[in-house]
Amino acid sequence: MKKRAVILFSGGLDSTTCLALAQKENFELFVLTINYGQRHSFELKASKLIASLYNVKKHSIIDINLAKFGGSALTDDIEVPKNRSDNEMSNIPITYVPARNTVFLSMALAWAESLKAYHIFIGVNSLDYSGYPDCRPEFIKSFEATANLATKIGVEGEKILIHTPLINLTKGEIIKLGLSLGVNYGLTSTCYDPKTNGNPCGSCDACILRIKGFNSASEKDPLDYSN
Amino acid sequence: MKKRAVILFSGGLDSTTCLALAQKENFELFVLTINYGQRHSFELKASKLIASLYNVKKHSIIDINLAKFGGSALTDDIEVPKNRSDNEMSNIPITYVPARNTVFLSMALAWAESLKAYHIFIGVNSLDYSGYPDCRPEFIKSFEATANLATKIGVEGEKILIHTPLINLTKGEIIKLGLSLGVNYGLTSTCYDPKTNGNPCGSCDACILRIKGFNSASEKDPLDYSN
Repeated sequence: MKKRAVILFSGGLDSTTCLALAQKENFELFVLTINYGQRHSFELKASKLIASLYNVKKHSIIDINLAKFGGSALTDDIEVPKNRSDNEMSNIPITYVPARNTVFLSMALAWAESLKAYHIFIGVNSLDYSGYPDCRPEFIKSFEATANLATKIGVEGEKILIHTPLINLTKGEIIKLGLSLGVNYGLTSTCYDPKTNGNPCGSCDACILRIKGFNSASEKDPLDYSN
Repeated sequence: MKKRAVILFSGGLDSTTCLALAQKENFELFVLTINYGQRHSFELKASKLIASLYNVKKHSIIDINLAKFGGSALTDDIEVPKNRSDNEMSNIPITYVPARNTVFLSMALAWAESLKAYHIFIGVNSLDYSGYPDCRPEFIKSFEATANLATKIGVEGEKILIHTPLINLTKGEIIKLGLSLGVNYGLTSTCYDPKTNGNPCGSCDACILRIKGFNSASEKDPLDYSN
């Protein structure tokens, strides 16, 4: 029997690479997308389309209204920052969503335990990223320890593993990995700006990191930034 | 200025005691109730009524459909166990909801960070409880460490504290504490059985622990178990 895995999946470049990798590693795929009130909700459409192209056992989209708590340009009516310099990008930006990955991993854990899946994949990256604290290895390691104390399966001696296959890769390396796995990055959604309605702006932090990644991989980004 | 606290609040005996205590300790109260798809949804009504009696700055009720994942008698169409013996009650029962307190604490953390609240209260108890792994001190301590790694406020040097004032009290001691704080336990909702529609069954684990607690405190439970 295949081992089961829950894959946190936004429809973006990183989590799509993660999904392709988990399929390659022969896991039975349970894909979890969280509709957390992100204003760039076109990524939900991308997640549905991409998940349909993989051998996914189930794709769940769960609503959790983090927008009710506020505090982020991704959920509130706050302008998404554009064209930040490398220096500015070393600070945690207003696009940080309070405790988002803790909430996402908790939900993945809840589903994993119900499924008796002992593997959770999350496409966090701590090299070419926006400085979010909940993308760092020390956070993931701590969450994994907590998950094993939190759950019946943990208490009963099974071990829940949080897989972060991208955590030490550059964006360019992630793109090369994904292309080797046949990922169609033309379907992935990256841009933070809700006003562009899925046509990437090319100047928010997420677009900038993506464009740099394709450049460093010497690959052509299939997305069209001319809109 | 008052210190802010997020109080996880179900409308039950323990979390109402926690709320009363946090008010006594002069916190500015942000009360969080999670509608997680519990079949005994009458506790949501109780939470609204009770919160209205305290000096609450804001009461948020957030929907997170854990029922979609299944795996518990509290969310699925599985009979709630009745009249379990002390011996049986030492096993983790089917009323355990996978990763529930991890999800709840994550949501409290998300709100706390948005509010710049550094205090989270949760009414977990590890003496007179149902053996849920996510009520144990080692889980709470691990979650607190994770919370401080997960967040911008943690990284910036503030410390998030998870308060568990009931964790080492017996149910009888909790009741005595609450009565000393003026809690009206007649308004609190304890029963797990959705069929009783708020009239306590007196024989599920939660009712049994409550009844024993009032007995050991030599106090009269204001709830009517005769229905």
